[in-house]
Amino acid sequence: MLAGKRLEPGPVVLLTTAHKGRPNVMTLVWHMMVDFEPPLVAVVVSDSNHSFRALSATRACVIAIPAVAMAETVIQVGSCSGRDIDKFTATGLTPLPAEHVPAPLVGECFANLECRVIDTRLVRKFNLFVLEVVKAWTDPRQRHPKTIHHQGYSRFVVDGEMLKLKSRMR
Amino acid sequence: MLAGKRLEPGPVVLLTTAHKGRPNVMTLVWHMMVDFEPPLVAVVVSDSNHSFRALSATRACVIAIPAVAMAETVIQVGSCSGRDIDKFTATGLTPLPAEHVPAPLVGECFANLECRVIDTRLVRKFNLFVLEVVKAWTDPRQRHPKTIHHQGYSRFVVDGEMLKLKSRMR
Repeated sequence: MLAGKRLEPGPVVLLTTAHKGRPNVMTLVWHMMVDFEPPLVAVVVSDSNHSFRALSATRACVIAIPAVAMAETVIQVGSCSGRDIDKFTATGLTPLPAEHVPAPLVGECFANLECRVIDTRLVRKFNLFVLEVVKAWTDPRQRHPKTIHHQGYSRFVVDGEMLKLKSRMR
Repeated sequence: MLAGKRLEPGPVVLLTTAHKGRPNVMTLVWHMMVDFEPPLVAVVVSDSNHSFRALSATRACVIAIPAVAMAETVIQVGSCSGRDIDKFTATGLTPLPAEHVPAPLVGECFANLECRVIDTRLVRKFNLFVLEVVKAWTDPRQRHPKTIHHQGYSRFVVDGEMLKLKSRMR
């Protein structure tokens, strides 16, 4: 459904987990905000992903948001499986301890959101998890970071021009 | 949660409904793909929106994707309520008949996705509907449309530079 590909371009993010002492990281495109207070996020993590099991078992993860300078690394993360390798070592990403969850923060990302799974009713049918963000970190050295958006078939779009349009949207 | 605002920028889209013969249209930011085959989309439509009732009652809608030239109109749609006015008339948007759902297509948008609600288990708690796209329309005259992304507080980012990075991501 090519038209649907146009719906997809939220920022490409990383999702980390840690299960049985083993950290892992995946690339995630299907996510959305669900509420602001408390901050809730929904994600679709395919059960064919190695992270699915860790997320299901630990009910915790970190969503780490990379800027465009990390694009090549992000693709690399999305092109291999934690089933086979330690992706942090393979990609050179820096795992840092989180405060509330066993999953690591990603040192290079400009934002890291520690999340707990709060609803699993749509996991069996749709691989859809509802998460609550329990702690948000931002890197003050990365100002005005540009994110990347997946358009499918090896094409990515970078944030472009900023529009200021008076809006009541929050 | 400002960091979460960085998660938000999927494209700003319009969502139309028709209930008791009355069409309506709202601006939607919280949506994500859930599956490709069949094409599934999740959306969060607040129960404070007039469209919530129409979507719940008819279990159908159209997601219409506007290009950046429509930005002002999109904001206008998001700044008033169908409770008070006929938003198609007020904004000059053109409602066109859809094939499978009572909700109208939006003539000016480059893509229109006719959708049926297929899961409502997360509606009561999270206002989250799972939709199946039953028909997708694209406007062949709008080539390489740029979409707009909400960053909160009257700021919007337009699609920028395109990166081609060899990726196994679909």
